[in-house]
Amino acid sequence: MKAVVVCDVGPRDGLQNEPDVLPPAVRAELATRLAAAGVLRVEAASFVRDDLVPQMAGAEEVAAALPADTQTTFAGLVLNERGYDRLRATSLEEVHFSFAASETFQQRNAGSSVEEGVATAARVVRRAHEDAHRATVTIGTAFGCPFEGEVDPGRVLELAARVAADGANEIVLADTIGVGVPSQARALVEGAIGHGVPVGVHLHDTRHTAVASAWAAVEAGATVLDGSIGGIGGCPFAPRATGNVATEDLLYLLEREDVPTGIDLDALIVVAEWLARVLGRKLPGRVYRAGPWPVNR
Amino acid sequence: MKAVVVCDVGPRDGLQNEPDVLPPAVRAELATRLAAAGVLRVEAASFVRDDLVPQMAGAEEVAAALPADTQTTFAGLVLNERGYDRLRATSLEEVHFSFAASETFQQRNAGSSVEEGVATAARVVRRAHEDAHRATVTIGTAFGCPFEGEVDPGRVLELAARVAADGANEIVLADTIGVGVPSQARALVEGAIGHGVPVGVHLHDTRHTAVASAWAAVEAGATVLDGSIGGIGGCPFAPRATGNVATEDLLYLLEREDVPTGIDLDALIVVAEWLARVLGRKLPGRVYRAGPWPVNR
Repeated sequence: MKAVVVCDVGPRDGLQNEPDVLPPAVRAELATRLAAAGVLRVEAASFVRDDLVPQMAGAEEVAAALPADTQTTFAGLVLNERGYDRLRATSLEEVHFSFAASETFQQRNAGSSVEEGVATAARVVRRAHEDAHRATVTIGTAFGCPFEGEVDPGRVLELAARVAADGANEIVLADTIGVGVPSQARALVEGAIGHGVPVGVHLHDTRHTAVASAWAAVEAGATVLDGSIGGIGGCPFAPRATGNVATEDLLYLLEREDVPTGIDLDALIVVAEWLARVLGRKLPGRVYRAGPWPVNR
Repeated sequence: MKAVVVCDVGPRDGLQNEPDVLPPAVRAELATRLAAAGVLRVEAASFVRDDLVPQMAGAEEVAAALPADTQTTFAGLVLNERGYDRLRATSLEEVHFSFAASETFQQRNAGSSVEEGVATAARVVRRAHEDAHRATVTIGTAFGCPFEGEVDPGRVLELAARVAADGANEIVLADTIGVGVPSQARALVEGAIGHGVPVGVHLHDTRHTAVASAWAAVEAGATVLDGSIGGIGGCPFAPRATGNVATEDLLYLLEREDVPTGIDLDALIVVAEWLARVLGRKLPGRVYRAGPWPVNR
């Protein structure tokens, strides 16, 4: 089967939604440890206002502490051009921009319309390319919206087509609230993949469907999977629930299904164990607790 | 898509592997609540030695407390003919018998060879039919063995063919230690289904693959899925890990994929909430914490 690029968003989407505030040096260490385990893409920082999102404060310090001698691409999330101005002054070589497919979510989360989201995505992609950076655009609430309910897949695919036409290097379809099921993943990936741009999925495991949907996405041709080490990152819309799917859990499945990723599962499990110690609690991920299998593989 | 019979094994496989010992009346109440939520099959008791498995003590009391006026079939697990002697003296109308596909596991777990397991299965099935009972045979370690590692799927399918020839009403392929992945589920179900007997899977979520493998099994034609309410039941081979997949988590996926089950998901979530209160702790299941979706479906 085709290789899959696993992007660990733990240092960003994970830690951003945890109560703990880890200093930039520790977040950089997490990203560095992930790279050392063979994770080829790490979303290491978010260029947002430090006073609004203290968990992400000091993005520049995180970027400055990342290693240069690695195969791994470190990326930063931006929500607007101001964020991109900050990212381009760092060593990061890839920008992630995200907007939602549903109007209410985009208004509440970003204070703009979906149309404005598409337009900003196009500007960020253009500027990234001028700077010889890669640009990934994530379409949020692609599997469902906490305010509007079902989201029309036709609308998601129309947005994906425009993002592709605007030159994004990659489109990631995000299940922001963890409601998606395999048939949705398959239909969205199959629809988006026709635009000639690599397609990925970013799945939350809030309702335990993320691994099944990720596998359906890979079978449909997705070549990028987002995960969050240890499964860190809760769900703001369901406070008792888990959020991001654990990277090492995805990796166990990919390894057993012979999908190449370049990642050393045993090393990744050690990173999850380290992070559990840093955070001082058991993480939602399952494989780091159960161990890989077979033992002598 | 074809309807799926969901069998909740929480009162048996779930509670058997929890540290708590619930009295027979509470286990019967759990089974009764599951039936009231529309679960059509409940493994309510295990006819084993009370001194060896105190969690399952008083199987006759559990059976005597179950309601008669329900569409639900209540089943009991037996490991030998002595167990069946006890079951046939109760009101239970279905027997579950289990043996492992791997020699070492069967020796350590049941003290017999796999051949003896097949032979006992045949005798239990024959006696059940003489009593006008249904008989399900579960083949354990079908996806992997904690002692032997990989298990040859050809061997599993050979055993399934013999069980089918011996007249079992249903064959369930069990991932006893939670190592399976979707391609295994698909291959085993496709292979077993040719014998003209309904095929099911019993999956543990120890490595987070149970929902993905369950969905692959259903796509391959499986018509029975075992689950354990709230995801109760740990994994004796990985003490820090989770065990059975949560019934309500499977059900969320089936409902979203339009697979008929007869179960009311909202009512099932209430049962999981009740059980969490009885056990006094958060259960591993995810959907009971996050809630179903969309809210007004």
